[in-house]
Order: sequence, then structure tokens, then C-alpha cells
Amino acid sequence: MPIIARNLLCTPNVWGEMNATQASDYLSRLDRVRHAMTQSGVDAALLSVGHDLPYLTGYHAMPLERLTMLVVGRTGVPTMVVPRLEVPRVTPVPGVFTVVPWDETEDPVKIVADVLGDARVIAIGDQMWARFLVELLPHVGGARFIRAVDVVGALRVSKDSSEIDALAAAGAAADRVATQLQSGAIPLVGRTEAQVSADLSARLLAEGHDVVNFAIVAAGENAASPHHHPGSRVIRAGEIVLCDFGGTMNGYCSDITRCVFTGKPTADVRAAYDVLFAAQQAGVDAAVVGAACEDVDAAARAVIDDAGFGEYFVHRTGHGIGMEAHEEPYMVKGNRRAIEPGFAFSVEPGIYVSGKWGMRLEDIVVATANGPQSMNVVNHELVALDV
Amino acid sequence: MPIIARNLLCTPNVWGEMNATQASDYLSRLDRVRHAMTQSGVDAALLSVGHDLPYLTGYHAMPLERLTMLVVGRTGVPTMVVPRLEVPRVTPVPGVFTVVPWDETEDPVKIVADVLGDARVIAIGDQMWARFLVELLPHVGGARFIRAVDVVGALRVSKDSSEIDALAAAGAAADRVATQLQSGAIPLVGRTEAQVSADLSARLLAEGHDVVNFAIVAAGENAASPHHHPGSRVIRAGEIVLCDFGGTMNGYCSDITRCVFTGKPTADVRAAYDVLFAAQQAGVDAAVVGAACEDVDAAARAVIDDAGFGEYFVHRTGHGIGMEAHEEPYMVKGNRRAIEPGFAFSVEPGIYVSGKWGMRLEDIVVATANGPQSMNVVNHELVALDV
Repeated sequence: MPIIARNLLCTPNVWGEMNATQASDYLSRLDRVRHAMTQSGVDAALLSVGHDLPYLTGYHAMPLERLTMLVVGRTGVPTMVVPRLEVPRVTPVPGVFTVVPWDETEDPVKIVADVLGDARVIAIGDQMWARFLVELLPHVGGARFIRAVDVVGALRVSKDSSEIDALAAAGAAADRVATQLQSGAIPLVGRTEAQVSADLSARLLAEGHDVVNFAIVAAGENAASPHHHPGSRVIRAGEIVLCDFGGTMNGYCSDITRCVFTGKPTADVRAAYDVLFAAQQAGVDAAVVGAACEDVDAAARAVIDDAGFGEYFVHRTGHGIGMEAHEEPYMVKGNRRAIEPGFAFSVEPGIYVSGKWGMRLEDIVVATANGPQSMNVVNHELVALDV
Repeated sequence: MPIIARNLLCTPNVWGEMNATQASDYLSRLDRVRHAMTQSGVDAALLSVGHDLPYLTGYHAMPLERLTMLVVGRTGVPTMVVPRLEVPRVTPVPGVFTVVPWDETEDPVKIVADVLGDARVIAIGDQMWARFLVELLPHVGGARFIRAVDVVGALRVSKDSSEIDALAAAGAAADRVATQLQSGAIPLVGRTEAQVSADLSARLLAEGHDVVNFAIVAAGENAASPHHHPGSRVIRAGEIVLCDFGGTMNGYCSDITRCVFTGKPTADVRAAYDVLFAAQQAGVDAAVVGAACEDVDAAARAVIDDAGFGEYFVHRTGHGIGMEAHEEPYMVKGNRRAIEPGFAFSVEPGIYVSGKWGMRLEDIVVATANGPQSMNVVNHELVALDV
């Protein structure tokens, strides 16, 4: 059984070894980024930790204090500034980037500033460590900054067919784990949330995921905390158990939430779940090309509001998903962006009653010309488990 | 066997449940931070993702697009701006911070800017996502930014006795895994680097770590890449295998490197390892209170230079360690900072001959009034394994 050693080392490489992207794909992406930069008046983009860099180059920066930074200007081959000791990790992609190594006694931010030259509008990668922007500021007085997510990230919103296939494969793997949960194959009563979380994680890997991103298990009153951390709480008979789990498989993410009940659901939970079920279906049905992102939120929320549970639905209805577990677009009030074919996002309304119980129902949905296509088709009911 | 689901969920909480820090500790740390802020002329510190926030509050921000940000001014109770749906995750610490929840349709950066008021010099947490600083800039025109690592981080450099105990416990656990490696209990020949990496990771957890941060396994010519990713390369008889692994245990990190040889070491490897061994010992011996950090680097490097291997030692000699795997201080040329009691750092020279082999020898060392104290005491020799 593989153990995931994350963060410093494995994410980049697990992904790197799985990645089948070709040099021509990277060149095409670079062209599109430059087109977007020109349209937005951006002179240069700086990409480091995060997913824009691998999207453009196949390389994940190590999330450490040694700076890795791709400088993309409007012309010429982009420059990747890399710690010399990590150069052997970088697989060159001719025409896509050149490598400029920096030595331990050099200042990589100064090197980046030199490459930037007189760029005045600079797009900054979302997840870049802020320390590097702080260090860069004195070098680029008068420059204006925008978020790279609005330039590079925008290109990643519409998934192509190979990306949709990858999301579908990850979704199917997550569905298989959900089936195991609903069948009773995963023991719940008497185990801690943390134990069940570890079990779900192992099953995600066994079903083909390369990395587990999260495995929320929240029992009874803990389920009222949407981002609850599974801890030492022992699961009992006669309560709801919310399970929200996902990982990355061949570079693309899964994310699913199903609730089960240990025994016969109580009447209040049963009634609320019927509302949740209808709300989630309404959200999926609203996820059509041309609708606004906020329409998906409104459709799900209306069902919950109308049933009198509005105050208990404390979060947006969904988030985009792709190479990242959360990315653009967000299904939230105020996001009037029109849904385009290939947009991939979660539809996950919830009802959370503090001190009592909580519930959420989540699928990943891709908008297509033929209507919303769900990546998760496993039973949407509140399954009652024998205990 | 536990599986680590990292990144989005588990790190904060694994740590949170282990954390025995008291409210009085947090209040004391806040006082020290404010003293440092005053001395540095800093009006406010902004802390988000990273380790300064949990150091001050016990809470880890989730590394997601929803902003969590602690605003520490020079006076008053600091404000933690938190997504409303994550408020149930936050354990209040009276006097240390107050929580300001933000709703999904609000702009959290605007809320942070309002709390900041007329702060002119603002310290920014190292690992904060740069997008939030980009979004903040228009709100705080004329402000000057510095890195929080130079204010808050500075307080974390000298470890107190309980922190040294935690580093020692983590180091002892890593040593037990290294002992298993050196005894031949971990099969190498015929397995892939990735398999051995997973094995080391499982053993780190079994020996008490809560999280595995990395487990580099690099065989033969791959060992010449200091940050090599363990992949599908099968380990053979008659080569060096470099293993560099560590994790987090009760909130503090381990980090150790040992090399073994599958069979009888070749003469060139044997000769180089003797140099490496002496260099590492020289580095440790130089790690005395009052010496400069760069002296440790110079001491180790001189041995390697004198033996003619200087060009193959391509990185600094060490990095600080504590709550983070890499933190201040760095043992690198140019760092003239004087070593103080409680400084904890790695001493890890290496020799890397591209296309042939590489080697590194690493211990964690704590500087004390009685001289350098090693957290790793397992055999430092190049152990020859029977194959």
C-alpha cells in the first residue's frame, strides 16, 4: 500500500511521471497565454509554486525557500530561474523555456528582476510564496500587478476532451470508493473519524488515484462543520456520517460527497435530506452552457430557501476543478460569468445545523453542448446502513 | 497503516490535535512579536498559510482560495479573518485573537484592508499566497512591505527546551528508520526507488511521525541529483543508494540522510565517502555558539575542497529546522549571523558526480552552551549491505 509523502517532494513527481502532455501542447498553451497577456495588457507573467507552471512547462516548482520562477514575456523563449541543485529535476522542453540556474550565494529575485527588464504590468502566480513578491517589489518600482489566474488561469477553465476524460476517470474511481461506503464495506460504527478517513484515503489510492487531497469524515454534530477535520470522535449507531473525499489521478482531481446513516435515519434528517437531494439536482440541471455561474448557486439555494433551511446553507454551491481541487469558476452569487462548454465544477449544496448534524451532496459536473454531464453517478440517496 | 492525506486538510489538524501549547505561551509569543515589530518599525503583520500563524495562534490556515488572515497590529487583540464555513475549525484563544468571519459573497481582502487602517509598514507571511498580496496592494497605496520571516520568524530561530526535546524525539524516530536501512531490514536490490521511498515513509509513520514530508531514494547515477525524485528506476547490486527522509512529529521536523552501498563499495566511492564523512564532522564541530552560520559551511566545504571535490558540492551546508522542514538560519556563505544557543539546523555536505554517483551525509544539530548536540546519532559510515 503506497504512502503519500506530500508537499516537498512527491506531488511534482508523481504528476510528472504521469504526464503525457507533448511539447506541441506546451507550445500551443504558451501561444494562448501570450494572446491573453496581450489582450490584458500584461507585459510579463511570473509563475512559481502552483499549477500554472506545470500547465505551461510540465514542471512543478518545489514549495521551498529556494525560488523557482518562470518569467514569460510577450516574446522570446520564457526563462525558468531554477536552483542549480534542482536543475537535474527539470525536463527541458525546447522552445517552451530555457533554464537559468542560480547558485546558493546568488539572489534569485535579482535574476528574475533582470529578466523582467522594463515590464510594467506583471501577472503573478496565485500560489507563489508572497515573500518573493515582497522581495521583488523594490526592484520593479512603478510596476502594476495583476493575478495570473486572470490570464493563465483563464485558459484552464474550459477543459478539452482529454481533460474531461481524465476528470471522468478520477470521478469513476471516487465513485467506486463511494459505492464501498454505501455498501457497508467500510466499517463505521466504533471507529474514529480519523480511522475511516485513513481507510477512504487508502481506497482512493487503491482505485487509481496518485495522491489523496482530502478525506473529510464528520459524524453527527461534527458534520455541521463543512470543513471538519476527522479526529478522535468515535462513530456511533444512529447518526449521519458525512464523507467528502478526493484526490488527483493522472493530473486531474476528483471530489465527491456522500452521506450515510448508521441505522434508520431520524425524521428530521430524512426530511432535510429530501430537500438537499432536490437542491443538488436543481443545481446540476441549471449547469447549462450560457447560464451564469451564479444561476447554479441560485437554483440550488432556492430549493433550500423555500424549504426553510436557507440559514443553514452557509457556503457557495460549487467550485471549479481540474488540475487543482479548487479553481475557477466558482458557483457563487455575484459571479455572472457565462458557463462555456468544458467548464468543470462541483455542485455541492449543504445544510448544517450547529450542534445537531450536517449534510452535503456533491458531484462534479462538466458543462457540454448536450447539457450537464456528471462525473459522479453513484447513488445520491442517504443510504441507511445496517448496524 | 495510516495514509497521509496532506495539503488541504490533514496537516493543520494532525498538528492541532498534537499541540500542547498553552494560551499563556501564545500571549507570550504575541508580546515578543510586538516587541520585534516595534524594533523593526513594523505597524502590522499579516499571517496566513505557513507556520507563523500556528506559532502565534495554534491555527493552520487551509491552503485554499478562501482567505484566512491574522492581522497583528502594534496594540489591541489581533484579528483573524476567517471564511465563515471554517469558523468551527478555529479554537478560540482569548486575548490572542478575535475571529471576524467573512461570507462567501464578501471580499476578505477588503476586510483585511479595513482592519489594517493606516498601517504604513506591513510584514507579510512568507508562504501567504501571492494573489492576496496582489489584491491588497491597491488598498494600501504607499505602504512598504517586509517579510514576516524577519520579524515573526526570527523569534522561532532559537528553540526552547521543549522544542529541542521535540526535535530530539523526531530525530530518534528517524534514526530508528535509518538503523533499519543500515541493517538490511529494508529490501533494496530489485525494488524501485519509489517502492523504497514508500517503505521508508511507512516506517517513519510507524516510528511515530504524524506526517511524512519527503523520502528521497536515489540509486547510482540518480544520487547525483540532490533533490532527486524516487521513480521507476530499479535498484541494482553494486551501487550507492542515497536516502534522505523526514517528517513532522508533534509539530517538529526530522531530516536525515544516510547512504548505503549494495555490496562492496567501489574504490572511488569509498575514497569520496571518507572525505564526506570528515567534512560532515568538521561542519558539526564548527557549529558552536558564537560562530557565524557561514563558518559551518566553510568548515565542511574546506574538507571537500582540499580533497579536490569542491566542484561537486553544489549546495549550501545546511538549513534551519523546527516547525518547518526548512527555515532560518541557513548555513551558507554570506550568512554572518552568529549562532545562538537553541539554533537548530542541518549539517549536510554532499558530493555529486553527474552521470556516476552522489552522496550526502546529514544530521540535525542544535547549538548549545556545551557545544553542538546532534539529534541523529545513528552510524555515519557508508554501510555495505549484503546482496
